[in-house]
Amino acid sequence: MYAGEAHSLEVEEILYEGKSDYQEVLVFQSSSYGKVLVLDGIVQLTEKDECAYQEMIAHLPLCSIPSPKAVLVVGGGDGGVLREISRHTSVETIDICEIDKMVIDVSKKFFPELSIGFEDPRVHLHVGDAVEFLQHTAKGKYDAIIVDSSDPVGPAQELVEKPFFETIARALRPGGVLCNMAESMWLHTHLIEDMISICRETFKGSVHYAWASVPTYPSGVIGFLLCSTEGPAVDFLNPVNPIEEVEGAGKHKRELRFYNSEMHRAAFALPNFLKREVSLLRGAPAPFLVRGQRM
Amino acid sequence: MYAGEAHSLEVEEILYEGKSDYQEVLVFQSSSYGKVLVLDGIVQLTEKDECAYQEMIAHLPLCSIPSPKAVLVVGGGDGGVLREISRHTSVETIDICEIDKMVIDVSKKFFPELSIGFEDPRVHLHVGDAVEFLQHTAKGKYDAIIVDSSDPVGPAQELVEKPFFETIARALRPGGVLCNMAESMWLHTHLIEDMISICRETFKGSVHYAWASVPTYPSGVIGFLLCSTEGPAVDFLNPVNPIEEVEGAGKHKRELRFYNSEMHRAAFALPNFLKREVSLLRGAPAPFLVRGQRM
Repeated sequence: MYAGEAHSLEVEEILYEGKSDYQEVLVFQSSSYGKVLVLDGIVQLTEKDECAYQEMIAHLPLCSIPSPKAVLVVGGGDGGVLREISRHTSVETIDICEIDKMVIDVSKKFFPELSIGFEDPRVHLHVGDAVEFLQHTAKGKYDAIIVDSSDPVGPAQELVEKPFFETIARALRPGGVLCNMAESMWLHTHLIEDMISICRETFKGSVHYAWASVPTYPSGVIGFLLCSTEGPAVDFLNPVNPIEEVEGAGKHKRELRFYNSEMHRAAFALPNFLKREVSLLRGAPAPFLVRGQRM
Repeated sequence: MYAGEAHSLEVEEILYEGKSDYQEVLVFQSSSYGKVLVLDGIVQLTEKDECAYQEMIAHLPLCSIPSPKAVLVVGGGDGGVLREISRHTSVETIDICEIDKMVIDVSKKFFPELSIGFEDPRVHLHVGDAVEFLQHTAKGKYDAIIVDSSDPVGPAQELVEKPFFETIARALRPGGVLCNMAESMWLHTHLIEDMISICRETFKGSVHYAWASVPTYPSGVIGFLLCSTEGPAVDFLNPVNPIEEVEGAGKHKRELRFYNSEMHRAAFALPNFLKREVSLLRGAPAPFLVRGQRM
């Protein structure tokens, strides 16, 4: 995912090596980041810093809408996002559509702190292709959809294309929200630009970019694209459903390690270079428009 | 600086290798981050991401006080921090105390976009030991002191010890501010803890921790310790001297690439794990106290 540099973790022991119908799956014990899950040679998560990614991708959307009830996770077979969604007592249904059963099985064996997410009785697991799954989903079914995909190579390729976003938008209720993994602001400006452009056409509510620090991802950051459909306005920048007021959220299974409402708001502050590059390419005065309102 | 992992940049060409009285100095052309300066084997800066570090370490303190006039830089021999201070038209004097002349010479040869900072006529260069320099400095001379040191091994060792911070505090006017490079929240929690502890004893105004994304630093982040002396209260979290209102600051030599007032405020949002660890060790209910006021 990034030429000209490498990030290496010291391997203490290889715990699992397998090849599913979709990708190569590797688990190893590192000396400094705990156990590590690798798909097709790309680090997906480590025990030390998974909290940042999982907590942000789940709570950025769920804390931005009042009382989320029906949630869909695309990908996320490790279960970490489910664990985070579980903190929300308002949620009644959590569908998850993961294409690769091996990821789930491997997580259940080696990452119990993540796969614990599958134990929530509200979770309904669908092993299969998310595009097909969404085509059979009732229009307007979900309050929130979280796309926790791997990088857009291999099985996740079509998850950054316009038809996929259109299918997502259709499955969301009016004023429903999407949170989509969206790469590194330092390395993948053009991919981010493309995703924002597609989402602006598809989502008629608002489109915002946020980011978080994750040491084991390329350049040490990961981005999130937050979109809402036409309907009740969503102000992603100021959580209306703050996690600190969700009963038991902080103590549920384990305490929150990364996310809080200050981190939520801070995630939307963008460096000038990103604002400028996205802005110039779009020919707009500011990169992120909330329907006519400049950030 | 971090066991069990490595971050590697592809070398296109070694441009300089030398050994000063203090450290080994290396400059190379990388394939993806531009030219890179390395001291004693540790990456100090790359052309691609130096903007994040230099802009944040300079503007976090200078935008937190009205109309800064006298500024001291400790270390910073590459000139990047000087370049950023130069944007502030209120500043009348910029002293810089760098121990290693070779760093300055190498920067002037290979990093003109940074060493341009030395060309500002307000800059007064002192090549020597900062501790000695500060001992001969009049009490209360500076509005702001910026410690842009290398990691606390080698010549920078004593720059994280209590006598040094006491000397800094003495050289600041009442309500003056210090911004000190303060490592990674992911990797160096104990060192951060020690520095905060010392600074709380030494600085009677406020003590805060902030951070920024810098891909080529360990774990992809760097922290800053912001302290103020007793006197006019300093609210680091809300810049009273916003860069957007400093005339010409955005166009001075080159446009700001990273810092803006949103990034300033966001830098003080801390993940739960850091709040908790620092808090527990201190036996205090919240990690960062602004004199009796919880963050």
